[in-house]
Amino acid sequence: MTTTASLDTLRAAFAGRLLTDAGDIAPFLTDWRGKWTGAAIAVAQPDTAADVAAVVRWCHAHRVPVVPQGGNTGLSGGATPDASGRALVLSLARLNRVRHVDVQNNTLEVEAGVTLLQVQEAAREAGRLFPLSLAAQGTCTIGGNLATNAGGVQVLRYGNARELCLGLEVATAEGELWSGLRGLRKDNTGYDLRDLFIGSEGTLGVITAAVLKLFPQPAARAVAFVAVPSPAQAVELLQLAQARLASSLTAFELISDTCIGLVMKHVPGSRRPLADASPWYVLLEISDAHDEAHANEALEGLLEAALEAGLATDAALSTSLAQFEQLWALRENISESQGAEGKTIKHDIALPISRIPAFVEATDAAIAAAFPGLRMVVFGHLGDGNLHYNVSPPEGRTGPEHAAAFVALEGPLNQLVHDAVAAAGGSISAEHGLGVLRRDEAARYKSPVERRMQQAVKQALDPLGLMNPGKVLG
Amino acid sequence: MTTTASLDTLRAAFAGRLLTDAGDIAPFLTDWRGKWTGAAIAVAQPDTAADVAAVVRWCHAHRVPVVPQGGNTGLSGGATPDASGRALVLSLARLNRVRHVDVQNNTLEVEAGVTLLQVQEAAREAGRLFPLSLAAQGTCTIGGNLATNAGGVQVLRYGNARELCLGLEVATAEGELWSGLRGLRKDNTGYDLRDLFIGSEGTLGVITAAVLKLFPQPAARAVAFVAVPSPAQAVELLQLAQARLASSLTAFELISDTCIGLVMKHVPGSRRPLADASPWYVLLEISDAHDEAHANEALEGLLEAALEAGLATDAALSTSLAQFEQLWALRENISESQGAEGKTIKHDIALPISRIPAFVEATDAAIAAAFPGLRMVVFGHLGDGNLHYNVSPPEGRTGPEHAAAFVALEGPLNQLVHDAVAAAGGSISAEHGLGVLRRDEAARYKSPVERRMQQAVKQALDPLGLMNPGKVLG
Repeated sequence: MTTTASLDTLRAAFAGRLLTDAGDIAPFLTDWRGKWTGAAIAVAQPDTAADVAAVVRWCHAHRVPVVPQGGNTGLSGGATPDASGRALVLSLARLNRVRHVDVQNNTLEVEAGVTLLQVQEAAREAGRLFPLSLAAQGTCTIGGNLATNAGGVQVLRYGNARELCLGLEVATAEGELWSGLRGLRKDNTGYDLRDLFIGSEGTLGVITAAVLKLFPQPAARAVAFVAVPSPAQAVELLQLAQARLASSLTAFELISDTCIGLVMKHVPGSRRPLADASPWYVLLEISDAHDEAHANEALEGLLEAALEAGLATDAALSTSLAQFEQLWALRENISESQGAEGKTIKHDIALPISRIPAFVEATDAAIAAAFPGLRMVVFGHLGDGNLHYNVSPPEGRTGPEHAAAFVALEGPLNQLVHDAVAAAGGSISAEHGLGVLRRDEAARYKSPVERRMQQAVKQALDPLGLMNPGKVLG
Repeated sequence: MTTTASLDTLRAAFAGRLLTDAGDIAPFLTDWRGKWTGAAIAVAQPDTAADVAAVVRWCHAHRVPVVPQGGNTGLSGGATPDASGRALVLSLARLNRVRHVDVQNNTLEVEAGVTLLQVQEAAREAGRLFPLSLAAQGTCTIGGNLATNAGGVQVLRYGNARELCLGLEVATAEGELWSGLRGLRKDNTGYDLRDLFIGSEGTLGVITAAVLKLFPQPAARAVAFVAVPSPAQAVELLQLAQARLASSLTAFELISDTCIGLVMKHVPGSRRPLADASPWYVLLEISDAHDEAHANEALEGLLEAALEAGLATDAALSTSLAQFEQLWALRENISESQGAEGKTIKHDIALPISRIPAFVEATDAAIAAAFPGLRMVVFGHLGDGNLHYNVSPPEGRTGPEHAAAFVALEGPLNQLVHDAVAAAGGSISAEHGLGVLRRDEAARYKSPVERRMQQAVKQALDPLGLMNPGKVLG
């Protein structure tokens, strides 16, 4: 039992803030979408890594579960405490220092609470690029990005958060501080603890700082919005683009016309940039080390070849920064526009790229047969094999009075979609993590031997089961 | 105690071969350099993953240590059994099938015993590139490359073996077969077991197959051999090359003139491709998605800028395939040429790139002061921060009669070099792994908390300590 007296010992054990007032801690108990709400004994806001470790040591000594929280922008409930009220929420937001830039080594050492946008800006100030980029970047923190192995729109070229991290500092479950802050591109001196903590959603320890990889800033970027007849042609266009552009191809997004229709309906001033509608589009981006002319030439050459091969039927190219941003906005406003269309049921899936066309065709048909009238809102990072295979209520049934009937479909819809994903060798959580949202489903699709290894790793690094309990593993 | 009777049960438990005759097993008991020799009860040569698991199950039931072995080309003694004679050597060489090529997904599924050269060829036949490339590629196996997280000359652009692998199949320590053969670029459904097995040198389980990443084949490649005054200018040249060429820069190797001198002495027909000697050289390679003219233009532009900025004093460019190969041969023949010059003491180190110039200057001076007359043979993958910081006996003392005196320096020399590496935040095994060679030294430089986590992981996945005992961890 945690008493007021022992909370006083916690307050004395570290230099940061400790919130215990119900009003003060409330914002930390609910995720930003309001999907999960829990309770906690307190919220600790240390401002150094040593103090994070001190807080965890206290929790370990008092058997208090620890729920680490960064920007609280996760989509799977990984940063919300459960309803028991036993846990302490450990906010990393005040660990917000950029510790060190090493320009020649192309690395940046930052604390966990630095926002992704601040990381990007620190890189830019050093004349470098930090390529991780996602919608929540103004609020999400790099610690959370690493804890969930975040993805985003540039993974095709630069990789997930995992590939962008060279070293970590972690407060272990016992409250020791491990400094694995290596700025090395090669290091074969034992087991890869770094990649074990990345993506573990705070269930093995608390990331307090990281060494990140930087890249040269591209001299120019350009995008094309390309009409394609179907996902099959989009996959062929991807092959062509990779052969011609190699790693200059920095984004390759698939978008259905339904998505564009929703954006035009809900975002004032947005318009389809092509004369005729097409069932599908690809938004592709090129980053060039030379200049704008070189980028445009490469893009025009690709599009000519694609039109000639029948992979594309029309295309619009950005010829100014404003157009570049307008074209990207069509992609970036899809989630919000779908949200404006009533409740949503989302699937963040990954598949072998070669299997995506058949998957979409068969699963669209199965959903249409089992749940007539539902609208498929399908878009995503085709270059990574990652689709946001989302569902909206039927046209005209988007009001709150229809919400309960739609939400009741979530379980059977998830099962239909995720069974199809598993059958195609895919993943039911490509970039959003498991948290509590996908925890039990993920377990269902994993083999017994994989589940046992996952549990053995958890037991090895968190034997008391105090680190973010109930997340990732059941 | 393992009896003949129980070896008969092993023979019956799987369909591959079992060697027990002393003459038959002898080649498996010594590493290729003849540095380590052990003993074993038998050598098992299964030819399917299921049979690998069956062999491990038998070992688990009979408490027999398992020493996995691929091409037996390792440099750290990771694939040689100890002297006890209790272990079974498990050869993966007969698991040699290319299982599946998925061209659209840019993936290749291969068994552990396929040689690296065969993997490269299978990729080429599919019109793709598998970029891992190293000296032993005709003999080493992809299973061994993954178990040791091999590096090589293209890491700068494509990453280590770790970054080139999407999924694994592994026989666990209990002899279960885990199929983690996902061909996915995004999958956030639990702890990253894949990266735990990669680089674990067979101490957590036996890799039986892998899904590998493929890349577009470059349209053209070109190299330049560039004279630079010192490592400091080489690091500045690297910055310039990255800014101008981005990911077209596929190799960036630093070579001292001592290295080139040894190659010219020992490899008939080799010559310095520049009129004047320089204390240091950079061999840099560009891969281009367009064509040869585009590649040469980019390379010439870079070299002009480098000469103008005083970073380079002279340069030779490849203008034919023969020249391309001649320039690369200067780099590839260094190890052999150093070997022809008597015994060698090698250090496979990684450092933050920014710290390499000061490290080389200070450590060269410290070695010259402590061990006068020794010759530094320094070269390596500067683009990755990885140097082969090697030492040869003094000129004129290279004969076998001097070998013992030189070898006696190994301990103190290693300590001097590795202490300096540790002080600069580096790694004492960049790409060769720990095996038995660097096991105890690595433990000395790791913090107690890191050592405890490494041991906890080992205990979690191999509780009986039967998987390649004595390697990686003490």
